[in-house]
Amino acid sequence: MSLNNRQLLLHARPKGLLAPGDLQLVESPIPELKDGQALAKVKYLSMDPTMRIWIAVDSYLPAVAIGEVMRAFGFAEILESRNTDYKKGDRVMGLTGLQDYAVLDSTNARTFQKVPKIPFVSDTAFLGVLGINGLTAFFGMEIAQPKKGETLVVSAAAGATGSIVGQLGKIYGCHVVGIAGSDDKCAWIKKGLGFDVAINYKQPDWKEKLAVATPHGIDINFENVGGEIMDTVLSRMNLHGRVVLCGLISGYTKEDPGVASFSTVLVKRLKVQGFIILDYAARFAEAATQLGQWKMFGKIKDKETIVEGLEKAPDAINMLFTGGNTGKLIVKL
Amino acid sequence: MSLNNRQLLLHARPKGLLAPGDLQLVESPIPELKDGQALAKVKYLSMDPTMRIWIAVDSYLPAVAIGEVMRAFGFAEILESRNTDYKKGDRVMGLTGLQDYAVLDSTNARTFQKVPKIPFVSDTAFLGVLGINGLTAFFGMEIAQPKKGETLVVSAAAGATGSIVGQLGKIYGCHVVGIAGSDDKCAWIKKGLGFDVAINYKQPDWKEKLAVATPHGIDINFENVGGEIMDTVLSRMNLHGRVVLCGLISGYTKEDPGVASFSTVLVKRLKVQGFIILDYAARFAEAATQLGQWKMFGKIKDKETIVEGLEKAPDAINMLFTGGNTGKLIVKL
Repeated sequence: MSLNNRQLLLHARPKGLLAPGDLQLVESPIPELKDGQALAKVKYLSMDPTMRIWIAVDSYLPAVAIGEVMRAFGFAEILESRNTDYKKGDRVMGLTGLQDYAVLDSTNARTFQKVPKIPFVSDTAFLGVLGINGLTAFFGMEIAQPKKGETLVVSAAAGATGSIVGQLGKIYGCHVVGIAGSDDKCAWIKKGLGFDVAINYKQPDWKEKLAVATPHGIDINFENVGGEIMDTVLSRMNLHGRVVLCGLISGYTKEDPGVASFSTVLVKRLKVQGFIILDYAARFAEAATQLGQWKMFGKIKDKETIVEGLEKAPDAINMLFTGGNTGKLIVKL
Repeated sequence: MSLNNRQLLLHARPKGLLAPGDLQLVESPIPELKDGQALAKVKYLSMDPTMRIWIAVDSYLPAVAIGEVMRAFGFAEILESRNTDYKKGDRVMGLTGLQDYAVLDSTNARTFQKVPKIPFVSDTAFLGVLGINGLTAFFGMEIAQPKKGETLVVSAAAGATGSIVGQLGKIYGCHVVGIAGSDDKCAWIKKGLGFDVAINYKQPDWKEKLAVATPHGIDINFENVGGEIMDTVLSRMNLHGRVVLCGLISGYTKEDPGVASFSTVLVKRLKVQGFIILDYAARFAEAATQLGQWKMFGKIKDKETIVEGLEKAPDAINMLFTGGNTGKLIVKL
């Protein structure tokens, strides 16, 4: 084949935000396909905070090795196949990595699934509201066991996952308070998505506003951020409250701030449950069906921030930690 | 009546350990009993780390007010009664407070229960192995849901609760590792109680020993201490492990150390459940019956450290945080 593949390889592990050169763009010809392989053109790349974990340390997945293609979820279309599971034109999503073309074979088949063509559903929805983020919100709320009338607080509420969490909270009958980092984001989640209250944590009086917004305390904390935001939310938790620990993004680009007032967990008898969406893979279809219905009937809305060009992916990853995106952040190739 | 009552009243909230004068011993005549009241002679006082919380801050119970009798569990015998629920000679346990005599009436009746006279069971057992500590161990292990062959690590393992937790772990078929603060304590829990491994955290190589003692990781952390000990245990937790958060005594007499590596809870998908034994009051009889059987058949052993004299109670409270006691710490009046 005469195609060239551009790839972003991990060159150095970042300390804080990604620095220029931490990921290096290289270009090389794509080798001839072997039996059992399929070649897919990557069309969209999903930008997720967890990438900052993958790039740095062994965690629920091994760290990306120096010299390897940076790991990423993506949406791709099969161009050519010598694998009986795929045929030209099939649409797949999975761990494509940050590159123009991905080779699917037995080593990574588990991370891919075929994606149906559904009327009125964009391809990118399979990376966000019907993909990792929607699924994360769905199973996280299953852990939270929301009851009608309970108060739910979600941080990073204008992010790809948080924005869906809050809408699920409304579907389940909760009083939903979202914490986000700009007035625009707050306006979107309140007016656009129906959150009861949106609080901009960059305003100096945000803690007082949180108190006013949660007069009966907080029953569920869907935590995406950690650090001072989580500590503040914990201080208002009700007895026997539930903390769904989904992300701790405030600690991904600087030292883990930990939890200052961990004794709250004891005194208030909280249940804190860490979770990683990959554990729920066996139930993705069930959840995606439900999410798809809600989306079709307008119960869940989503928004995308699109960045164009593979070479922009490193900056896009940083945007996740500097507040640059609203809703799902996607790199279009 | 001509009896005088000695009481320890809260005079000042301690900063770290109790200082002389934080509790003040006063003596005054006991007023005539009114209708509905009963007078009990306190025989034994239970010294519990949670007293250091009660003395300092509003928590799951309101803080003891300045000028009030310091709150404490105790074992007492009814001397005189104008309450139809009690008669002279009845044995009770409950929140007697740090004093020679307690008056039971409608304001505190809920905190007391009558205690049967059981052959071969000491009165003090109702404050420890068949009381708060045994019950705490029992319901904490219910939260932990131990499975045969799993590894359980308990901190403050030679304390009144931890020593029972480890023995329950053996009953449930776990590999039990206890962390304690002296070689003598370690010898007792290993040779006396049957823990598989005992680790003295004051030895410089204790973290390496913990690693050797938990070759398959840790499934359950029954946490009584917090701080560096908890952080170290968390670092060895297995995926989907459970942390029963029973106490954080390392933070009671100094600033709450928090949790340094809270991200472990997320990455390893841990469940952290804070609990306070008072939530289980409705099931105390059920648990005490089971604990009593195990004790009678020698499946659970206990040890007591007895301090004599009400005036020694402030020092006894401090012993809980300086490692002075093995097993249940009791003040005998």
